[in-house]
Amino acid sequence: MKILIVGATGTIGSAVSNLLKGRHEVISVGSHSGDFQVDISNEASIQSLFNSVGMCDAIVCTSGSVRFKPLADLTAEDYQFGLNHKLMGQVNLVRIGKNYVSQGGSFTLTSGILNHDPIAASSGAAMVNGALEGFVRAAAMELPNSQRINLVSPTVITESLPKYASVFPGYVSVDAATAAMAYVKSVEGKQTGQVYRVGY
Amino acid sequence: MKILIVGATGTIGSAVSNLLKGRHEVISVGSHSGDFQVDISNEASIQSLFNSVGMCDAIVCTSGSVRFKPLADLTAEDYQFGLNHKLMGQVNLVRIGKNYVSQGGSFTLTSGILNHDPIAASSGAAMVNGALEGFVRAAAMELPNSQRINLVSPTVITESLPKYASVFPGYVSVDAATAAMAYVKSVEGKQTGQVYRVGY
Repeated sequence: MKILIVGATGTIGSAVSNLLKGRHEVISVGSHSGDFQVDISNEASIQSLFNSVGMCDAIVCTSGSVRFKPLADLTAEDYQFGLNHKLMGQVNLVRIGKNYVSQGGSFTLTSGILNHDPIAASSGAAMVNGALEGFVRAAAMELPNSQRINLVSPTVITESLPKYASVFPGYVSVDAATAAMAYVKSVEGKQTGQVYRVGY
Repeated sequence: MKILIVGATGTIGSAVSNLLKGRHEVISVGSHSGDFQVDISNEASIQSLFNSVGMCDAIVCTSGSVRFKPLADLTAEDYQFGLNHKLMGQVNLVRIGKNYVSQGGSFTLTSGILNHDPIAASSGAAMVNGALEGFVRAAAMELPNSQRINLVSPTVITESLPKYASVFPGYVSVDAATAAMAYVKSVEGKQTGQVYRVGY
């Protein structure tokens, strides 16, 4: 398979890439690194990516930013930042990408634990994660050409604990290589419309 | 209690109003009807509403629009319409309203079944409903003054079947008066951070 990994140089993305690259053609995409660059918050940039890459068999996205601030400090613009980036960035990858994915090919998006098990200052992130779950379940029924779509929702990643341990008190982490298995299940399996919770 | 019901003249809102008005002061708010008017997609309109209404003990929102279109036809702007109205409209009611709700007072928002059990052409609605679940669970931990927040997620409403039966094949409806009970539980009870599924 020809597999596009958006966010391929990140913690999860590089673990997914490691699992898939031995037996597939992996094309790495980053905001500033990788084989190709994309700004997923910009529809024209996504279209430009597919103009360059052409048809593929699977699209994995492990990228998407949100703002973490206390509820008292989150402005409508802060929420919209996450809606533009992590939510609509991934949704637009699907909207535009469905014209470039082969018969039976797949999309695998990324959310996270916080809509089920929130931490402080996470209402923007929790909103986006919940939105992705709803979108994936509904969109799975309507993708063309038997395309599939699944969502990976990991808990905090072990490799990220040096940065995030203090804001995830009592959360049991999962290592990136284990989280990456859920992406492999989505890409190489046949399921669609699923939310794969990893580590919780 | 002084209770603000945004969407009070709609199918669910009028049922909620009927259950609460006997024992509380109910202030009805609509887009074009009711004691006061608001456009929840407009932050200035929400601020203006609270400038007029002042402090209250509970805010119920049964209002919020999304666009239903096949996945192939939904543009980024169509998704954003629902994000602006049903999602950020309700979120901004909370963001601004938390300055006008009394100690221990409550917010009760409305989503719906579609993020769990989607119909055709519902990916925009499912996205918004899922986002509301994530937001409510996370925001519940951070509201000031012991304020509470819950979400009511009903299946299709019996009174709406003349309009919607054909797009909800096989869905068992719930009457508006039963759905309204979940709002009463949220307003008069003590729970917070809950998603009340009604009829499914």
